[in-house]
Amino acid sequence: MPVVLFVDYPHTKLYAPLIDHKFQDKYDLLVVPGGAKGADTISKNANVQELVRQYYEKKLVGMICAGSLAAKTSGLPKQPLTSHPSVKKQLEKDFEYSEESVVISGNGNLVTSRGPGTAFPFALALVEILCGTKKRTEVQNPMVFPPGTPF
Amino acid sequence: MPVVLFVDYPHTKLYAPLIDHKFQDKYDLLVVPGGAKGADTISKNANVQELVRQYYEKKLVGMICAGSLAAKTSGLPKQPLTSHPSVKKQLEKDFEYSEESVVISGNGNLVTSRGPGTAFPFALALVEILCGTKKRTEVQNPMVFPPGTPF
Repeated sequence: MPVVLFVDYPHTKLYAPLIDHKFQDKYDLLVVPGGAKGADTISKNANVQELVRQYYEKKLVGMICAGSLAAKTSGLPKQPLTSHPSVKKQLEKDFEYSEESVVISGNGNLVTSRGPGTAFPFALALVEILCGTKKRTEVQNPMVFPPGTPF
Repeated sequence: MPVVLFVDYPHTKLYAPLIDHKFQDKYDLLVVPGGAKGADTISKNANVQELVRQYYEKKLVGMICAGSLAAKTSGLPKQPLTSHPSVKKQLEKDFEYSEESVVISGNGNLVTSRGPGTAFPFALALVEILCGTKKRTEVQNPMVFPPGTPF
């Protein structure tokens, strides 16, 4: 189940060849992370925007923290979405803004989340979509979340 | 507030020079992470054991997941402690084993925790000990933990 995570914002120039090499045939999931300046740079990158559109249309795309800005810059249709509160104002006109920790929208092909504190439920939701509930449980249980954890 | 995290178990040979260079004068916190084979290798390393004893006596030491094995291999005194459930049997005779997500023991100089799912409350407890409640809140709030998160 190959997946990819964009993390290193100075290296956005590397994203172009990924498109040339049929990136979307190789990986089942594209994740756009947050990180203020990094998310800003990634979301403004035309190659990233093209990949986001491709993954939204054909596969699965996740965005967390300020990474949700990529939904706007890539021109995804208006739908439920969440993000880090620091970029809420940039998104609430173009989307049905939610403050849920994890929002699954589109046809289940867009998963957005809020910040480092929601990274676990975000990741586990992606695992569940890609591999099913049984695999999610298999991954989650040995992580020993505190009793009462709300996911 | 310099801290250090041992992560790369094939590199345990690098730990020896750290002692020679008065490692404990430079860093305020030593953290022993988990990771099954990694934790096993780290906890059996004599240099790590010496550092653990030094940090336990003079500063602050954290152990998470199977990293708690280092408390035993370093000969720390019997006291409350937790770990990943997978190594509970190796620790429960020598310590007052707890299933709390984060256990602060000694004179507040040993902090142990259970697994990836308790990494956030573990890290935040260390921040609070080192930098105070105000700093903990300052770090924790923008992370946007889900409502109802039990820490």
